[in-house]
Amino acid sequence: VTDTAPEILPVILCGGAGTRLWPLSTDTSPKHFHAFGSEKSLFQDTVLRLRDEDGARFLAPLIICGRDHGSLVEAQLAEIGVTAAATVLEPCGRNTAPAAAIAAQLAAERHPQALILLAPADHQIAKGQVFRQTIARSARVARDYIVTFGIKPSRPETGYGYIQCADPLAPGVFSVARFVEKPGAAEAQNYLEQGDYAWNAGIFLFSPEVFLRELRAHRPDIADYALAALPAERKGTVIGLDDARFRACPAESIDYAVMEHTRKAAVAPCEIGWTDVGSWNEVWRLGAQDGAANVSRGSVITANARGSLIWSDGPIVAAIGVEDLIIVATKDAVLVMPKSQAQALKAVVEALPQDASSRD
Amino acid sequence: VTDTAPEILPVILCGGAGTRLWPLSTDTSPKHFHAFGSEKSLFQDTVLRLRDEDGARFLAPLIICGRDHGSLVEAQLAEIGVTAAATVLEPCGRNTAPAAAIAAQLAAERHPQALILLAPADHQIAKGQVFRQTIARSARVARDYIVTFGIKPSRPETGYGYIQCADPLAPGVFSVARFVEKPGAAEAQNYLEQGDYAWNAGIFLFSPEVFLRELRAHRPDIADYALAALPAERKGTVIGLDDARFRACPAESIDYAVMEHTRKAAVAPCEIGWTDVGSWNEVWRLGAQDGAANVSRGSVITANARGSLIWSDGPIVAAIGVEDLIIVATKDAVLVMPKSQAQALKAVVEALPQDASSRD
Repeated sequence: VTDTAPEILPVILCGGAGTRLWPLSTDTSPKHFHAFGSEKSLFQDTVLRLRDEDGARFLAPLIICGRDHGSLVEAQLAEIGVTAAATVLEPCGRNTAPAAAIAAQLAAERHPQALILLAPADHQIAKGQVFRQTIARSARVARDYIVTFGIKPSRPETGYGYIQCADPLAPGVFSVARFVEKPGAAEAQNYLEQGDYAWNAGIFLFSPEVFLRELRAHRPDIADYALAALPAERKGTVIGLDDARFRACPAESIDYAVMEHTRKAAVAPCEIGWTDVGSWNEVWRLGAQDGAANVSRGSVITANARGSLIWSDGPIVAAIGVEDLIIVATKDAVLVMPKSQAQALKAVVEALPQDASSRD
Repeated sequence: VTDTAPEILPVILCGGAGTRLWPLSTDTSPKHFHAFGSEKSLFQDTVLRLRDEDGARFLAPLIICGRDHGSLVEAQLAEIGVTAAATVLEPCGRNTAPAAAIAAQLAAERHPQALILLAPADHQIAKGQVFRQTIARSARVARDYIVTFGIKPSRPETGYGYIQCADPLAPGVFSVARFVEKPGAAEAQNYLEQGDYAWNAGIFLFSPEVFLRELRAHRPDIADYALAALPAERKGTVIGLDDARFRACPAESIDYAVMEHTRKAAVAPCEIGWTDVGSWNEVWRLGAQDGAANVSRGSVITANARGSLIWSDGPIVAAIGVEDLIIVATKDAVLVMPKSQAQALKAVVEALPQDASSRD
């Protein structure tokens, strides 16, 4: 850490619920507040990852979460001994662009010289050091550009968006040739072989001034409605938003609202052991497998089981002679499905009675 | 009902837990206190089945249950508006012979002219009318014989004991040629074809005097220890047994202690739609199957499931794309196994930590 390193304000986005991790992830207790491959929750690990090491200098974080999750955020921060600079409570989900606008406005008022590192709370990053180093080396470019962190692809994944790198702006940071929506299998294979494509992980580094300028240029409506929802008095550490104004704000992602239009997009490709922990199959793939390729967690008893994820958040689960199954149990709900059927979960969860589902 | 029909005292045995129906059936809440194919529990249906119809005349029932289940018995009787003549609380399980001795002693004191109809609480009997008719026509023989009710076999079952009929003692009631332990498959097939064998269902009709005489003749130790456990004062409706004396009593079944030795054994073969609801596979087989052969109960959501039992006693259970599985969930525990692996359940449950298992 040197005195010349710019201050960085971590902004942690805790929106969304993670339908595909039902029944662990629900409206009242979304995915990022649970622990998967770690002792700590995804949210806690996200906060702790952004610490003063490896050439980066971080301020106390700004948390943006749903109105119902303020106390959960507070409790989980207390567990890890972190005090947030502020917690912004959203009355409803409006995707990432409005949240980024609010974060940029608060940062501009409080730390006009700082950069914002905006990160979703629901990703796992195995290599924190490489991540912090990548942030540090992107800081200079981020004075003028909105830098997005591109994950070097390890497989021809069709579930993510891709970013194609163009010319270098600095060592390891490139201007963006184009953003690509979730591609087909052949296209994804091409991107993997071509080598200049990266997965879009939704992590950004930018100056508040540049972001607000670019948002106003391309989506002034989002900037107006989002910032109008900020209360006139906003000096406390818990900031509620005006319900009607925020609800009136268009729901849009940073990518759609800004990145795909601005000339100030940059990408820093990196290999940081990233995963979005997007499905139970992924939890199984990432987990510690026993000799029969089972991953289990909690009060689990297996007999003659194979290739299965058996996950308990409370009840005793006995899995006998099962093969390639996902079994997840909480005190309120139980999921059983073959790993091969995981894609059907979202529709089933969305059809659940409201109090059991994880919809926003 | 005629005045000449003998009075019959129903004695309902509520011992045992039903390990093979874990996790629904547990030490604290054994199988017979749960409902399967009916709105009422197996225990409640057993009590209600023995009512004054079809030529039989029943007294208020005597219940014999584990010490921990007295309040459950009371609550379930209150639900169906029945008052027990008495409830005997066993400090531990000692199989059926000691319980029958105690029932016979109490009956001899209170209703010396009545017969005892002794029935386990954990069986389903679809044809109550035929059952009561069979009891009524066996009553005369039961003045001198211990009548056991034999279920006409519908398949070459190897899981039950068999009784071979000898000469008729009265219409539809026979003396016993022999008792057979669980036979092999070929033997069971022979019994089925031969036609003079019946399943031993553990339901008995006898006079207290005859039973006590025969028990004293063949197992005086059981009679002595069991009756010594009865308190001197036993006029209330809840009768506790002396812990040390009852514990010292040999654990033995009526069949082993008396039936296989006495010359006073009789059998009344009948077709009463009997099943002992012995396993989850049987619950699936007996249940109301949907178009894809699934049987479900409680808060269950299925998508693309087939041939499965999905049973919830509380939590929401989502079963997606599963095939030929048993899935059972309570608030404390979850079981998942292929129907083909059901025989492994007992060993798994017996290895569970004590507070989660259903062992006695």
